[in-house]
Amino acid sequence: MREFERAIRNIKGLDAKSMEQARIRQDTLTKPKGSLGRLEELSIRLAGIMRNPHPAVNNKVIITMAGDHGVVEEGVTLYPQEVTAQMVNNFLRGGAAVNVLADHAGARVIVVDMGVSGKLDDHLSSPVDTELIIKKVGIGTRNMVLGPAMSREEAFRSLDAGIEVVDEQVSKGMDILGIGDMGIGNTTASSAIASVFTGLKPIEVTGRGTGLDNGKLNHKINIIDKALNINKPDPHDAVDVLAKVGGFEIGGMAGAVIAAAAHRIPVVLDGFISGAAALIAVGIEPEVRNYLIASHQSVEAGHIHVLNYLKLKPLLNLNMRLGEGTGAALGISLAQAAAGVLNKMATFSQAGVSEA
Amino acid sequence: MREFERAIRNIKGLDAKSMEQARIRQDTLTKPKGSLGRLEELSIRLAGIMRNPHPAVNNKVIITMAGDHGVVEEGVTLYPQEVTAQMVNNFLRGGAAVNVLADHAGARVIVVDMGVSGKLDDHLSSPVDTELIIKKVGIGTRNMVLGPAMSREEAFRSLDAGIEVVDEQVSKGMDILGIGDMGIGNTTASSAIASVFTGLKPIEVTGRGTGLDNGKLNHKINIIDKALNINKPDPHDAVDVLAKVGGFEIGGMAGAVIAAAAHRIPVVLDGFISGAAALIAVGIEPEVRNYLIASHQSVEAGHIHVLNYLKLKPLLNLNMRLGEGTGAALGISLAQAAAGVLNKMATFSQAGVSEA
Repeated sequence: MREFERAIRNIKGLDAKSMEQARIRQDTLTKPKGSLGRLEELSIRLAGIMRNPHPAVNNKVIITMAGDHGVVEEGVTLYPQEVTAQMVNNFLRGGAAVNVLADHAGARVIVVDMGVSGKLDDHLSSPVDTELIIKKVGIGTRNMVLGPAMSREEAFRSLDAGIEVVDEQVSKGMDILGIGDMGIGNTTASSAIASVFTGLKPIEVTGRGTGLDNGKLNHKINIIDKALNINKPDPHDAVDVLAKVGGFEIGGMAGAVIAAAAHRIPVVLDGFISGAAALIAVGIEPEVRNYLIASHQSVEAGHIHVLNYLKLKPLLNLNMRLGEGTGAALGISLAQAAAGVLNKMATFSQAGVSEA
Repeated sequence: MREFERAIRNIKGLDAKSMEQARIRQDTLTKPKGSLGRLEELSIRLAGIMRNPHPAVNNKVIITMAGDHGVVEEGVTLYPQEVTAQMVNNFLRGGAAVNVLADHAGARVIVVDMGVSGKLDDHLSSPVDTELIIKKVGIGTRNMVLGPAMSREEAFRSLDAGIEVVDEQVSKGMDILGIGDMGIGNTTASSAIASVFTGLKPIEVTGRGTGLDNGKLNHKINIIDKALNINKPDPHDAVDVLAKVGGFEIGGMAGAVIAAAAHRIPVVLDGFISGAAALIAVGIEPEVRNYLIASHQSVEAGHIHVLNYLKLKPLLNLNMRLGEGTGAALGISLAQAAAGVLNKMATFSQAGVSEA
């Protein structure tokens, strides 16, 4: 049995009892009932996910999966493919946005090479801020306009790699997982995935990525149309979708989501790419959806449709569209705040405060 | 000359040069231009406020002003007046939501007794988490349905007290200020203030406070109508508005806002009450507006109108309505994240990343 199949067997529903205990406790804390709004709701969901009416959100990890995409040879991106490796090197030296925002949230960043085509720095030879894990499934995917981006076996291997990375972090005490991405061309893959699952046309779920103009956006939409027509991914077989129009990092993120759900660990999604990975994960096992927390709504056009399909309401809307796990870092911080309120506030009786 | 008049003389516009330098730097950092959206905009405004292209947001303070309101004898609240003092005691022992969320944001909480009518714990006799400053202008305001809530001299004194509290924190190195409130009855005062400045009717800017039902909400609206008719506050004289339908804590918060602007310190507003205090401060000196950061949009009905009047776009919308500075704590955290991105990220040339 594959790693990800084993993980799926462990995914259960949320714990109604812990949620009820958390809900009752929220109403005894020294504040008008419900006055912390979505922080209260989030704390209750954390209780259900973690099977604990006092969910601890201390050991925070952001896993940023990186991979390259053969479809970039169709001219669908503003930045050249070499930027994927260059940005991974930037992550390892602590200079990227995800490093700064993860540090702000008190989260560790783990970078996973799922299939970067460029050369990475020999990170072991110099002091680095960020851990790199090599899980290379291939040297970038193949061009999905010419056929499947990867084989079904490679799709399985990318899912398994995500499972392994999360299992290792769980053994190190991870309480909450944020997932992020790096991969020039991966909004093209994500739009294709979003189109397959939501049933919307590519024009409805395709955005400007890092900043395409109208002409290049139309070209990108045409390329996605072509890739879907040639590959005909089966929306009822999420592994087929991943193989035909996905990416190694997207498969890794989907595996990570599945593993976290199996370990009852909340998963904070980032933006559009992690949303596409969540579509794959939920396509494989629908129960995963309950473990997902949407950090923010991205500017990238397809993201809102992904969130609606997943029935997730984003915590933030700050016009962000960077990826890497930057939104997840902010979401993790809010999740920790939500758990803090539930766990640390005084009750009316403890504080000697009169009730309404 | 009064303290607050002296402070007003020091309020200048934002520093365009620092903002331009910050804007240019944002476009050299290793991310697609503009991809961090409102975090980038916020970092640029922080640069302008602090006259520094590398604004530091480290020493974070939330000042929570507390005061009582004579109008509670009209039955406009769900909780009894004694809760104001009880909650101040809760702040001092670290058990309230603002304590938890300020701690999460790495901010100190300073509680100011601007005019609490109940008895406060002798906080010096036991270990406390939170500093208390006594600036009592009176033992609660008078009932504004029967005449002015306070004298013009008391209004001046409440503004001056806010100035003094902020001046002291500035001398201790404060980089950013969040303001919060505690005062049973203060949504009634705030709705009256909002009505005067926005020109909207009380019914349009009055909400349920801690949770009034429809009948009590209608009663509250009638009381505000009556108070405005009896007092006829002059919208062109913000001190008159504060005196007639305000509160001691609202005056203290307005003074704090003015002092922060005079010291070029960004002010993170909380919800509806701090919005009303901002209306007073901006009414006194319009330039103050540029120093304000709206942390969140409160559920309290009048808040969106206050934000629109002040031309402020809230960072968060989490269905919160607690006050105390809870939203400000989350906003301070986002401001620190925004400054961190600007100050700590690597540029394209530093990181050796290819540009678009």
